[in-house]
Formats: sequence, C-alpha cells, structure tokens
Amino acid sequence: MSDLRERLVAAVGAAHVLDGADCLDLAHDEALGVGHGTPAYVVRPSSTAEVVAVVTAARETHTPLVARGAGTGLSGGANPPDGAVVVAFDRMTVIRAIDTTDHVAVVEPGVSVTQLDAAAREHGLTYPIRPGEQTASLGGTVATNAGGMHAVRYGVTRAHVVGLEAVLADGTVVRDGGRLAKVSSGYDLTQLLVGSEGTLALVTEVTVRLQPYLPVRRTVLAPFADLTTTTAAVARVVGSGLGPSLCEYLDDPTMDAICAAADLSLGIPDEVRAGADAYLVVELVGRRADRVEGDLVELAELLADAGAPDVYVLPEGSARRLVEAREQAFWTVKARGADEVVDVVVPRSAMAEFIGRARAIAERHGTRVLGCGHAGDGNVHFAVFGPGGDAHAAALDTTVHEVLAAGVGLGGAVSGEHGVGRAKAGAFAELTDPGALAAMRRVRAALDPEGLLNPGAGPV
Amino acid sequence: MSDLRERLVAAVGAAHVLDGADCLDLAHDEALGVGHGTPAYVVRPSSTAEVVAVVTAARETHTPLVARGAGTGLSGGANPPDGAVVVAFDRMTVIRAIDTTDHVAVVEPGVSVTQLDAAAREHGLTYPIRPGEQTASLGGTVATNAGGMHAVRYGVTRAHVVGLEAVLADGTVVRDGGRLAKVSSGYDLTQLLVGSEGTLALVTEVTVRLQPYLPVRRTVLAPFADLTTTTAAVARVVGSGLGPSLCEYLDDPTMDAICAAADLSLGIPDEVRAGADAYLVVELVGRRADRVEGDLVELAELLADAGAPDVYVLPEGSARRLVEAREQAFWTVKARGADEVVDVVVPRSAMAEFIGRARAIAERHGTRVLGCGHAGDGNVHFAVFGPGGDAHAAALDTTVHEVLAAGVGLGGAVSGEHGVGRAKAGAFAELTDPGALAAMRRVRAALDPEGLLNPGAGPV
Repeated sequence: MSDLRERLVAAVGAAHVLDGADCLDLAHDEALGVGHGTPAYVVRPSSTAEVVAVVTAARETHTPLVARGAGTGLSGGANPPDGAVVVAFDRMTVIRAIDTTDHVAVVEPGVSVTQLDAAAREHGLTYPIRPGEQTASLGGTVATNAGGMHAVRYGVTRAHVVGLEAVLADGTVVRDGGRLAKVSSGYDLTQLLVGSEGTLALVTEVTVRLQPYLPVRRTVLAPFADLTTTTAAVARVVGSGLGPSLCEYLDDPTMDAICAAADLSLGIPDEVRAGADAYLVVELVGRRADRVEGDLVELAELLADAGAPDVYVLPEGSARRLVEAREQAFWTVKARGADEVVDVVVPRSAMAEFIGRARAIAERHGTRVLGCGHAGDGNVHFAVFGPGGDAHAAALDTTVHEVLAAGVGLGGAVSGEHGVGRAKAGAFAELTDPGALAAMRRVRAALDPEGLLNPGAGPV
Repeated sequence: MSDLRERLVAAVGAAHVLDGADCLDLAHDEALGVGHGTPAYVVRPSSTAEVVAVVTAARETHTPLVARGAGTGLSGGANPPDGAVVVAFDRMTVIRAIDTTDHVAVVEPGVSVTQLDAAAREHGLTYPIRPGEQTASLGGTVATNAGGMHAVRYGVTRAHVVGLEAVLADGTVVRDGGRLAKVSSGYDLTQLLVGSEGTLALVTEVTVRLQPYLPVRRTVLAPFADLTTTTAAVARVVGSGLGPSLCEYLDDPTMDAICAAADLSLGIPDEVRAGADAYLVVELVGRRADRVEGDLVELAELLADAGAPDVYVLPEGSARRLVEAREQAFWTVKARGADEVVDVVVPRSAMAEFIGRARAIAERHGTRVLGCGHAGDGNVHFAVFGPGGDAHAAALDTTVHEVLAAGVGLGGAVSGEHGVGRAKAGAFAELTDPGALAAMRRVRAALDPEGLLNPGAGPV
C-alpha cells in the first residue's frame, strides 16, 4: 500500500493524497440503503495528465478506482469498495469556454450545474439540465446521465453532451466529439460514456450544448381525482405541441409533505384537496409574455378537459417555491425517514398501472411507497418506507425488488436518471434483457479488462 | 459455397436467396468514387429469427455480412466485399405501432422515412428526420445516424431513436431501450449502435420518438455577399430562440444549378444575384400562423441586420420547390458530373474558414468544390469535380483527403451525416484521435471478434 501511496503522491502531489479512513465523507453519495467501503486514498487531480498518472498508478498496483463528482448521486455509484482509490474531481472546476457562436460550453468535470448555468446566462444562454441537486458536478451528471425536471422539454444530459475527453483504464486519453452540432464518424464514444457511471473511463473534460435562455415562465397546478386521469392528461400535454418545460406529478401525501417542509400554501380549497389523489404541475416557457399567456389558457383548457376539476395558475413566487420544494423532495422524504428511493422509468402510458402495482406491492409487504416524478418522462420517483421492527429489512428489500421488477415488466427500466450504481446493480443484472446485458459486459471487458473502474457498480 | 447456400436457404427460404452476381444493383449504395465487390448472395429475411439464422450461417462459414436498407447511403457503407452475404431488409417493412400516448413508433428496419412520417401524420404526429433521399429506410438511417435539413431544430437520427432490437455477430439478440422518454440503466447500447454502420449488429426493430406535427411553415431566402457574413448570421439565427426548422446555405453556383434543375425562378433581381456569394434559406414552423408571421418579421430583421442586402419571404409554392430542389442537390451535382461528395462537419464558427480552405485546396489541385449544407449544424456538403485528363484521379483523391483533413483540423469530423462507410474509412483511421480510434476498435472486436460485420467499413 505504501508503494501505491508513493505513486499517487508522485501523480498529484502529497497535499492531494488523503488517507481514505480520514475522509469517509468522500466515500459515498446520497443513496439510501447501500453501503460503502473504506477507500485506501482519496486523490484530487488537477489536470488530465494527473488523472492519467493516477490511473497508471492504480493499474500498476491493481487497485480499483472510483470517480467522485459532488457526491449528490442517489445510487451509490460513487461508493468505493474497501481499498479503492477515490478520484475526486473537486479541483477540476474551470469553465474553459462559453462559446456563443457554436453555443457550447467546455468545462472541467468538477464544475457544478449551477456554476455552468450561471456562466451561460451571462450570455443569454442556459444549460437546462436541472437535477434534483444543482450542486451536482458536470462529471457526475455525465456519469449518471442525469435528468431532472426540464427533461420533458430539453431531454436528459445525454442530449446535451457533444464531446468528452476521458481516460481509459489503461491510461489512454480519448478525445471524442467536440463543438459540433452533429457527427457521424465512427462509434459515438461520447454517448457510450454518458451514463456509464465511471465504469468505462474517467471523464476529464465535457463539452455541452447551450440553449437560448427563455425569460418568460408560467406555472399551473391541476389536481386530479385519480392517477389514471392524471397520466392520461400528461400524454395530452406532451402531445399538444405546447412544449412544457416541466410536467411533474405529485401524489397527495408528497404534496402535503413538500408544502409543509417549504411552509407553502397553494390556495387550493380544502374540498378540492380532499378529492385529489394526485397533482400535475406544468410549466410553460417562452420568449414573449403574450404568447406564454395565450398558451397558458390553452393548457388550462386542455387540463380541465382532461378531467382536472380546477386549474390554478400560480403566482410567480408560489410557482418558484413549489418547484424548489419539489426539487427538494428527496431531502423532505429523507427527513421523514424514507428508507430507499427508486426512480423507475416506464412508458408514459404505463405510469398509472405501474404506480397502482407499486402501491399493491407495498400494501402486501406492510411498506409504503409515496411518490412524485417527472410525469412527462414516465419517470416515477418513490420514497419507500419500511414497516420498522423485525420485518423491516426484508420487507423493504422485497418491496424495492418487486417495484423494480414491476417497472421492467411494463416495458420500463430500473432507473430513469439516478443510474444503476451499487444500489441497483443486482436487480439490473437480474431484470435486464440477457442479450443486452451480455453486450454491455463485453464492452466493459473490452475497455477495462482488469475490472479496475468502479467494480460492483453498473452492469456487473 | 454450396454449403453456405444451403444454410441460407434453410434460414430464409430458397425464394429469398439471390445469387450475388445476378443482382449487383443491390451491391452498392449511391456513393460516388468507391467500389464494391460481388457478393456471394443477397438474402432477404422477413423476421428477427430469420436474421439470427442468417447470422449463424455466416458465422459458421466465416462469411462476411453486409446489411442493406434502401441503398440510398452516400459513403459505401452498404457496398460488400467479394464473397460477402448482403442482408437486404426490404421484406421487413411493417410499422408495428404508432403509439399516440408514448409518442413513439415501432418499426421494422425496412420501413422508409416517408412511410413512417405518413403514418405518424395520420395521428397529428411527425417523424422529423429528413435525409436527402426520403426513400431511405429506418434501418439505414439508424446505421448512418442520418441527419438532413430538419436537424437544426430536431437533431439527427440519434436524438430520436429510443430503442433497438439487433442481432450481434454471434447470433445474440439484444433488446435495448423501449417506449421510454429516457433511461439511465447500464450502457446505452441503442446509442452505441446508432451510427455504427452495420459493423456491430444487424438492427431488426427500431423504436423512435414522434413529435407533434406543426402545421404552419414559412421560408425566407437571404443572399449574402460573402461566406463570413453568411455563417456569422447562422449563429445569430440559431441563438435567437426562434427555433428554425431549416437553416441551409448554398453557394452561388449550387443555387444556380438547383434552380436550373428544378426550373425554379426565385424572383431575385439580377443585380442582387450578381453580388451574392452565398444564400441562406431559413424555415420557421409553428402551431399558429400569427406567431410564425411575427417570428418571420423578427427573422427578416435579424438577417438584414446580419448583412443580408435584402430578405425574400418565399411564397409557399416556391419555398416548397426550393427546399425540394435543395434536397435533390446530390442528384443535381451527380448529373453535372460530380466525382465525389463529402459532408464534413465543423464547428459552426469555423464554417467560413473551412469553406475558404477547401476552395484554396481545390484551386491548388485544379479541382472544384461546390457546396451547400446544413449551415445550422456546421455540416458542409461539397460536390468535388476532378480536372479530367491524366491528373484526374490523383487530383481528386488529394483534394478530398486535404478537405477532410482541413475539417478535422478545425475541430470537425470527416462526416456529419453520411457516415464513414468504405469511402472515408482510410481518412477516418488516419485523422481521428488515436485514443478514440483505439477504443472504437476494442468495442468492435468485443462485439464481433471475427470481424464478420461489414469488414472494410467504419472504424477499421
């Protein structure tokens, strides 16, 4: 091990090689219900060359490497096994370019989503990816293919990443894509690496598309009596051509919880709330207030026609606070004792069926699943609460597993945006199409034959 | 060879095993300047099971396989070497679903872009990919990651494909993705296969996103005195938030040629034409006529401000004919004797510089490069004309190679939408980042260790 330490010190300097046991805070993300080991070291490279040196040191000593961005992930993708080296990217935080002709940004992986968006906004542009936790790093969002509330309009991280520099397990530096709107020249390694959760390469530079910033936004809230009606309304909203920038559903207990946590009153009469099983929050954006107002009328009519007993146009302050509270939903349910979170994605048309099955599964096992989610994307976020007592762990595990299986059975996948990480690696291996899983394993073995990159996470 | 024939007959039936020498029309795409061999057989499977049987027969006899869609490609990606088996997908033409809730279509690979879009339009939806040749098959467009004129608004094929079924070289059937708006569960094999030009798998089913159809479209034409001004205007159009559905440039000779070929008069005064080095054609689409008209005014002002001496709003008939004529540009330049076409992609900001360098290269070698392109994407399409005579072939080769190198040197890639195929495989291997190329080769070897799928094409 001292040999490893010497090599790492040679790679990044003694000040940036931390003993793993001294910084266990850097040895996990925010996932609930998944453990982590004690890393041998946490290293903090400041350049691609230093990352190459770290990778080389690890390879020569057969030491596993786990990349770490801001640690805001929810699947344990940054949780190292015992003895691994955690590669923290918190010193690589330079925005190398905001390019207003090609409409791209070039950033180091430690730059946060907030930091990038703020820099883009100075030029009338925006980076529209909005994961639940905006302190997320670009490298981390690339690793997990992060989504968030704006994905219904703008797509997930994958849709925005046009180029990467990354270091493979053998130290090879790969440069792929660039400041390009499109490309059809060989395999799209950029797309292969997005969502690969640090199992194929360590990303050292990210080039992303920027979008014109749209200054006008208006938000409506619509209660619905049941989930089937709610999700049927979602298909109409998405198919309308109105281009919503947010289309979220919240079940009634989750709405209660986040309003309480944010001390937020939405001004909805008690009798309407009493009859509501779920809510849709839909946001429209645009360049011009008159048009957004016109679209808002159309949207309200559409929602009423789809079965909402009433539609509330939220004042700007309330809208912002509701959206922020929704973003903080994970922290709210965590504070209320949630034992697990899952973010199954299913076809939009199957959302109501999926949620119904999940509730039945929970009831069978004495657990609870409460949820909200990116309804426009079919991405259902459940907080899972175990029953406590002796049966707690088993009931929880069974519930989570059956809920994931129910989603996959409806044509979905175990995660829409959190990733597989360590938390869902077992279920993923069990539930994924065997042909696809075999192909993934072959790709992984081809790029990392010794299995040094994030072992135990992803398609293991 | 008779053993191979027996196996293929067992796989797809005797009626669907054609002798290669009898159907050389099926042994090439539309690429200029790249040869093809004589395939042993052309087989026409009708199902995934039959494709698996064909792949198995080929593997057991060590016979290369080349997939063929509609043969409209421009890079020789469907051109077999001698003795290969061409797998033609012209019997797999079923649209399995147009899903109006999830807004996806599920199609067999032989379905054409035209056929799919027509089916989607019956439901108020559209498949917006518009390659130069609309008889292109979905399988072919997936293989090449086809782009086309609408990519500036909707993105290329990659942005629309959300699921694939495909058969690997060892006969494994892979099912990846689905009717999902997003997913973050393992590597995105769908994205890996899009653009892989039949070198990693044979695609047997494609699931694509559909978009709401926008009924209103208006088109403007703006002449510019020089290329630098033209491409600077493009950045402003794209950055405006107007969301153009088409942003094409044409150089003056190309505009002349396509107008002559389509017998089209644009009503531009002679003195304006005389001063124009290039033209921009920009189309706006929307749900409402009043808004599109409003945007059109804004667009015209922007173009004038960006240096267009005049901006012409085209009547609907002229606009449609101009766009159609632009789509047919390949056939026009082919009829005029073009020896090669290239479709280098560069950063938008580098387009003028790239075109200038290409013209200088051509001048040096006594060749000509005339062009048009998807300006919003930085995708420059050149028709290359050799000098004739003894120096023809050498001058042509040198010009094409130097033009590709110039594009890559400016941060671009050898192809924006045609693909590498056989036509550019050599240049691609020479000009691509060595780390990226090595990674591509490792992926290819992992999924097709014997090299049976489309040898000689792609990242060889």
